[in-house]
Amino acid sequence: MQVIPPALERLIIDLTRLPGIGQKTASRLALYLLRRPAAEALHLSTSLAELHASIQLCSRCFAFSENDPCQICEDSRRNDRLVCVVEAPGDLMAIEKTGSFGGVYHILHGVLAPMEGIGPDELKIRELFQRVRTQEIEEILVATSSTVPGEATASYLIDYLAGMPVKVTRLACGIPMGMDIKYADEHTLARAVESRQIIR
Amino acid sequence: MQVIPPALERLIIDLTRLPGIGQKTASRLALYLLRRPAAEALHLSTSLAELHASIQLCSRCFAFSENDPCQICEDSRRNDRLVCVVEAPGDLMAIEKTGSFGGVYHILHGVLAPMEGIGPDELKIRELFQRVRTQEIEEILVATSSTVPGEATASYLIDYLAGMPVKVTRLACGIPMGMDIKYADEHTLARAVESRQIIR
Repeated sequence: MQVIPPALERLIIDLTRLPGIGQKTASRLALYLLRRPAAEALHLSTSLAELHASIQLCSRCFAFSENDPCQICEDSRRNDRLVCVVEAPGDLMAIEKTGSFGGVYHILHGVLAPMEGIGPDELKIRELFQRVRTQEIEEILVATSSTVPGEATASYLIDYLAGMPVKVTRLACGIPMGMDIKYADEHTLARAVESRQIIR
Repeated sequence: MQVIPPALERLIIDLTRLPGIGQKTASRLALYLLRRPAAEALHLSTSLAELHASIQLCSRCFAFSENDPCQICEDSRRNDRLVCVVEAPGDLMAIEKTGSFGGVYHILHGVLAPMEGIGPDELKIRELFQRVRTQEIEEILVATSSTVPGEATASYLIDYLAGMPVKVTRLACGIPMGMDIKYADEHTLARAVESRQIIR
């Protein structure tokens, strides 16, 4: 007995393919769209259809962009001698939102994960070294996540870059702003003590 | 500074319009689709475009269906003298999944919410009474949720149906299967005691 109309079921199946969307959430979303005016589902449909058609990778920094080079790489007010290396486009967006970075980026599109067969060649690491060799870069800010694979990727980059005439920096690790010290986990607290800053 | 490509931003905005999807989840989903082959986003796009085009409301029970009447109403093996009244199509799917109901349905498409201006005329309540008057219905199983608005809607229906020659039943409330009694909330436990069943 087919209880769910096939068109609804197809949408539910497609939605469950998205990360973090299970069967129940997918059903809820699909039924919501069915209850709302058709224009809403069509609008979302159009946005999805246009996504890949109008976005490509910037050939310099590998950010997603509608132009090549991307607007950040093209912007003459930005310091292209300071390159921030991030794992993914979402990290670039998070750093841009802070408004505290005036350099350019290099997106790795992942982290090293030898167990899953992801080595340096699967990421944009070769391209990063190429940029360091061919462009006048003064500083590489390694801004991978402070997770185990993020740290491993950072170590790999830092080791390799040691042989090149470029300053290498890392995002500061420590107590999050506004956090009570007694609630900080011990690894973070240990790192905050080790990286303590001289005030005067 | 436009950091996010417009096509990506449009998709993120459209996704945040969905219930339970915030800014962060929308960004994560959109970036996921961008990283995956274009075919995946296009597939989802097509499913969304086809949703409203191929689904309508069954004119008898008001379920979403690709045919009118829907497959359940059309099925001669089902008992059309037993009508289960539910709030929404998702409830119908949940009951169908159990395989323990052999009657037909009537979907109200909401619950009474006078504060939000949702009265009987905004739901398919008039149509339910019309069915009771014109079809040979023996039993109405009121299967609204055991929430405050669900119970209020049930009370309204039960009061109105009292004047009609039809048996009215309600889903049993009690301890969920497999639950330890000491963890049941007191309202559920009180209801389970009041509705205790005679074994012998």
